[in-house]
Amino acid sequence: MSGDIEQLKLRLREFAAVRDWDQFHSPKNLSMALIAEAAELVEHFQWLTEAQSSNLKPDKLAEVAAELADIFIYLIRAADTLGIDLIAATQRKIEHNERKYPVEQVRGSAKKYTEYR
Amino acid sequence: MSGDIEQLKLRLREFAAVRDWDQFHSPKNLSMALIAEAAELVEHFQWLTEAQSSNLKPDKLAEVAAELADIFIYLIRAADTLGIDLIAATQRKIEHNERKYPVEQVRGSAKKYTEYR
Amino acid sequence: MSGDIEQLKLRLREFAAVRDWDQFHSPKNLSMALIAEAAELVEHFQWLTEAQSSNLKPDKLAEVAAELADIFIYLIRAADTLGIDLIAATQRKIEHNERKYPVEQVRGSAKKYTEYR
Amino acid sequence: MSGDIEQLKLRLREFAAVRDWDQFHSPKNLSMALIAEAAELVEHFQWLTEAQSSNLKPDKLAEVAAELADIFIYLIRAADTLGIDLIAATQRKIEHNERKYPVEQVRGSAKKYTEYR
Repeated sequence: MSGDIEQLKLRLREFAAVRDWDQFHSPKNLSMALIAEAAELVEHFQWLTEAQSSNLKPDKLAEVAAELADIFIYLIRAADTLGIDLIAATQRKIEHNERKYPVEQVRGSAKKYTEYR
Repeated sequence: MSGDIEQLKLRLREFAAVRDWDQFHSPKNLSMALIAEAAELVEHFQWLTEAQSSNLKPDKLAEVAAELADIFIYLIRAADTLGIDLIAATQRKIEHNERKYPVEQVRGSAKKYTEYR
Repeated sequence: MSGDIEQLKLRLREFAAVRDWDQFHSPKNLSMALIAEAAELVEHFQWLTEAQSSNLKPDKLAEVAAELADIFIYLIRAADTLGIDLIAATQRKIEHNERKYPVEQVRGSAKKYTEYR
Repeated sequence: MSGDIEQLKLRLREFAAVRDWDQFHSPKNLSMALIAEAAELVEHFQWLTEAQSSNLKPDKLAEVAAELADIFIYLIRAADTLGIDLIAATQRKIEHNERKYPVEQVRGSAKKYTEYR
């Protein structure tokens, strides 16, 4: 990792260290905290239509931004405690997906999309 | 956003566009995809002890890295479709947390930690 | 609990006992297994419209039924290991909800519904 | 379904109908509500050890019981809107699991357990 994520990683590492919270931050526990935050994102959208979810009012959008931040915080912490380079792993995964879903075979079809997943 | 995340965002935007998959990528749907990937991370750890979750074998660690990447991919896509700057939102949230959990009040206590959350 | 759930509870208790799997079935671990199964349900619906999710083909419906069953299995196990009567707790919660969402105040409005949640 | 679950199903059906909330209760939306409730269960346990999760104080246990109830409510609603018999589906799944995890092959081993999953 480098750049912005590296800075966030170090800041979050310090945040946990000075509070003596590393003892709670096992990968197992962090995976639970991450999914709990992901669920708060889901909760914002569960009774909205897809179109409504794309047209949030500013106050709602600010709440959703804070949920995305919470997810990102635990994602960075999980990667850090496991020694995983998040950027490199993601680049590898995108390359994998580009091979797995060839444009000419999956384009523009919900059906094909779903089947391919 | 800038740097590495900006590059990933543009690459993922292109990935969806050339496959004509933007039609599926409403924030509502992306929140579902994100939590489904978060659950695959949880699945790796659900029968492990906390200590075991910190000591994964290389092949398992590679699988976990791919799960973190999947989460990150949908997190970036969600932020992009909502027009949210993920880095800025996360910096704001960390500042908020630093004020919310003052070091001298929460340090080293699981009980205090849990109550404060 | 009584009746059908009681029978499932005893059968699942036996299932775990004869395999010596009680050692893995802490409430913490069971909550992780439960949400992992809930995510498999979500995965079936994440790229479908709401209307499509109400009109599944028979083979898809059978898969979804198996996901609901998996969720129910871990829900029953979690309640059992915690000594919670699932039926009684649910009746109490429905009564609570009936008071919390009075018909005349919340009827027929997505906005009110969302606000009240 | 029969007995207690049948009664809960009818009561929840009435609860939604008189509030005109069926319009929100697509299987897709109910799967989101269900996983959001599952995450609230996870949140109770995320910073606890497995042993602590088995020894909750009465007030915490009451909160956890309410979370299990919320999960059950959306599970019953999801099954109802999909026309799935939850008890029958669960009995089928348990039979499937009994064949999939033969006692003599999986007993007493975390490793085998994990591999078999």
